[in-house]
Amino acid sequence: MSNEDFNKRLFKYFDDHQKDYIQRLGDAVRIPSVSAWPDHRSEVVRMVEWTKSLMEKLGVKVELADIGQQKLADGTKIKLPDVILGTYGNDKTKKNVLVYGHLDVQPAQVSDGWDTEPFVLTEKHGKLFGRGSTDDKGPVISWLNVIEAYQTLNEPFPVNVKFVLESMEEYGSDGLEDLLKSLKNTFLSDVDYVVISDSYWLGKEKPCLQYGLRGICYFFIDVESSTKDLHSGVFGGTVHEAMTDLITIMSTLVDDQGRILINGMYDDVAPLSPAEEQLYSKITFDVSTYCSEAGVKKTIQTEKEKILMHRWRYPSLSLHGIQGAFDGCGCKTVIPRHVIGKFSIRIVPNMKISTVEKLVENHVKQIMKTRNSPNKVSIKLEHGGNYWVADPNNPQYVAARKATVAVHGIEPDLTREGGSIPITLTFQEQTGKSVLLLPVGASDDGAHSQNEKFDISNYMNGMKVMSVYFQEVAKL
Amino acid sequence: MSNEDFNKRLFKYFDDHQKDYIQRLGDAVRIPSVSAWPDHRSEVVRMVEWTKSLMEKLGVKVELADIGQQKLADGTKIKLPDVILGTYGNDKTKKNVLVYGHLDVQPAQVSDGWDTEPFVLTEKHGKLFGRGSTDDKGPVISWLNVIEAYQTLNEPFPVNVKFVLESMEEYGSDGLEDLLKSLKNTFLSDVDYVVISDSYWLGKEKPCLQYGLRGICYFFIDVESSTKDLHSGVFGGTVHEAMTDLITIMSTLVDDQGRILINGMYDDVAPLSPAEEQLYSKITFDVSTYCSEAGVKKTIQTEKEKILMHRWRYPSLSLHGIQGAFDGCGCKTVIPRHVIGKFSIRIVPNMKISTVEKLVENHVKQIMKTRNSPNKVSIKLEHGGNYWVADPNNPQYVAARKATVAVHGIEPDLTREGGSIPITLTFQEQTGKSVLLLPVGASDDGAHSQNEKFDISNYMNGMKVMSVYFQEVAKL
Repeated sequence: MSNEDFNKRLFKYFDDHQKDYIQRLGDAVRIPSVSAWPDHRSEVVRMVEWTKSLMEKLGVKVELADIGQQKLADGTKIKLPDVILGTYGNDKTKKNVLVYGHLDVQPAQVSDGWDTEPFVLTEKHGKLFGRGSTDDKGPVISWLNVIEAYQTLNEPFPVNVKFVLESMEEYGSDGLEDLLKSLKNTFLSDVDYVVISDSYWLGKEKPCLQYGLRGICYFFIDVESSTKDLHSGVFGGTVHEAMTDLITIMSTLVDDQGRILINGMYDDVAPLSPAEEQLYSKITFDVSTYCSEAGVKKTIQTEKEKILMHRWRYPSLSLHGIQGAFDGCGCKTVIPRHVIGKFSIRIVPNMKISTVEKLVENHVKQIMKTRNSPNKVSIKLEHGGNYWVADPNNPQYVAARKATVAVHGIEPDLTREGGSIPITLTFQEQTGKSVLLLPVGASDDGAHSQNEKFDISNYMNGMKVMSVYFQEVAKL
Repeated sequence: MSNEDFNKRLFKYFDDHQKDYIQRLGDAVRIPSVSAWPDHRSEVVRMVEWTKSLMEKLGVKVELADIGQQKLADGTKIKLPDVILGTYGNDKTKKNVLVYGHLDVQPAQVSDGWDTEPFVLTEKHGKLFGRGSTDDKGPVISWLNVIEAYQTLNEPFPVNVKFVLESMEEYGSDGLEDLLKSLKNTFLSDVDYVVISDSYWLGKEKPCLQYGLRGICYFFIDVESSTKDLHSGVFGGTVHEAMTDLITIMSTLVDDQGRILINGMYDDVAPLSPAEEQLYSKITFDVSTYCSEAGVKKTIQTEKEKILMHRWRYPSLSLHGIQGAFDGCGCKTVIPRHVIGKFSIRIVPNMKISTVEKLVENHVKQIMKTRNSPNKVSIKLEHGGNYWVADPNNPQYVAARKATVAVHGIEPDLTREGGSIPITLTFQEQTGKSVLLLPVGASDDGAHSQNEKFDISNYMNGMKVMSVYFQEVAKL
């Protein structure tokens, strides 16, 4: 039977079983596996068990990997939920595709402003509302539904699949990086491709593949002026205030057009090649929709291409706030003794974290040299995460593009994300293989918001794309 | 009997009754009249009753003035404590001296770090520890002790005394200004002098009289960029961030030497006359003690005179903080949608609040003109309070200086305060007469801190100074 004939049967099978798929997703959403709530840890474990049981029913060999304990704010420790390592098929002649996903969800309660019970999957106008519906229970279950469909239709699966399903993603993926490093020469050693469906289309209509993420360097500027907070009436005018130094430093970092003012910060930014530039013009992206999503009247750039480039392929600097200063309502006449200014730089190819750190350090030192202040000023890279970028013309991407065309009838946009998904880079480093970000949800799914939803059409089409993607990868 | 002879008897009487005075202060401290705690309002009322009863025992005619209700944060209302209006003597040939003081205290609990029970007056090494001991129960009781001593010694009192004793001072003197305005043509109409003992010496050893207070203009800079907080990964680099505008504006307000950078801000500052300059050199003030009190290694100015002038007679600008930005621990990659920067300017003779407001408005407008930003920026004078300054050579001050010499054997320092006591100005405006700040506590009394105390020597000498002050005022 040709692929095309089989796919007709397969797609019909998916369509015929839509109700079952919705019910399965509903079963998963009903388990409130909120990783940020320690008192819900047993629900997270229940979600792991539920998934394990489904996988085993499908013949996936499952191993639960212990990743240690989580230290809570009050000092007590609780067990981190096990990571599911699944293996489906071990045919040496087939490609090994690793699927990553997560089973935990963001916190949610009706009082946050949900129109429905967040942990009851509710269908309205072709949309499935519920916490975790799109992030990331829907996509994870989709992968498993695909395996099930092949089995029912008695068709050999085109590839071997490995699963890494964690349950702390919404709380920083505690313990996962160490686990992946420890699996480098065992579970991960024979992986050919890694695919992750845990992100979203650029818009609501057109599918995309993502080939890049920005990294981040998060800085703390620490300024200490005295051993105690002072009264501005008594001491104002005679002491070197910490806030004056801090605000001055913070004001020298970025201009009104978003350009970073730190010397040398653009030196390592990859020049824009004509080929890359061409990618942008093809992308479907509506500037006014973007403005209304952000809730702004206008953006810094006006052209679509420029906006996308500044989200994805240029660095940016945001001033987040100040810890230790007066932040309440009303008037308080305090001179804060110790303030910490917080800002971060989104980094892009080919910036190096160590270089960024040095440039920022030098910049702050230079500024302080021009000031006559005895205050203790220090700058610290609190957190650094690298950018990630893939070649959107590499074979795995070509396979996914073909799969998208087969299902949606159009070429997917080739996009990036402005934020970070650190685990992407870890998978690339530990397998040494191509990683593909294959979103199936739409831009308005509201992953971390109230009324998170997953469109039924995206659920159904997602499974179809995943199926053809496996077939195309098998041909490589 | 000459004043000198009587004063010998009077001072001996004070010394002989030290134990009784300490016990009386202990009785007052035992009533936890915390005005900031609504659930303690009955204790505040009890303190009013206790004082009224003591005053009536001494023959002071007492009227309780209702000043209305206080609206709590939850919307409920509770009665404000009555203000005591007392009248002692009505001899038309005598001067009428109005004494202001307050019966409420700052919050206190052992867990704040007190070494003793805050509401049990505890004597250690000549110091009386307890909340309210120096602020302001000690001074208020001192005035009454003086009246009692004259009575016991059967000596006619040199002046008529009026009392205004409020019990909301530590919570913004709610209702008092309106009351004083309503009393302008009645209770206040025949007042000749106003005296307030509710502040502290400049140091621990040398008495002072205070003849000036700075005013304050507290500003909010409000910047709004979008309808929701944004993720810096997704939107950073493409939107005009509110924080960038705010931090830039805040960085243009004051330099590293405390000089205000707003055009015209020094135009109305009274020039320093040689006579005023001379006042500063005489003052006992130790720069290294000041530094250690502030917890700083060095001050902006190095000379004693310059430091005092910048605390008292020059304006200063302090940056207090930002509301609406990220102010917590750790890293949050937020682009805050709406931020409010807070700063205040301490104002001095002859600055006008309305001029200061206009200058700040113009400044912010000028800065924003140089920026290409669509964000909504507004500046608001949230609170304005005028400076106050008296002539330290006016007759009432001369009387208080003579009283200080008579008791302490030295001329008091003539000082100002850098902060504001708004009611001072109200008394001056409503009576049209001289107001004297006559501190009796020492600089290390810790009025609003843990372990507030009142030295027994200050308590005793304070009553002596008060007595001679009345005698000297009677001669004017």
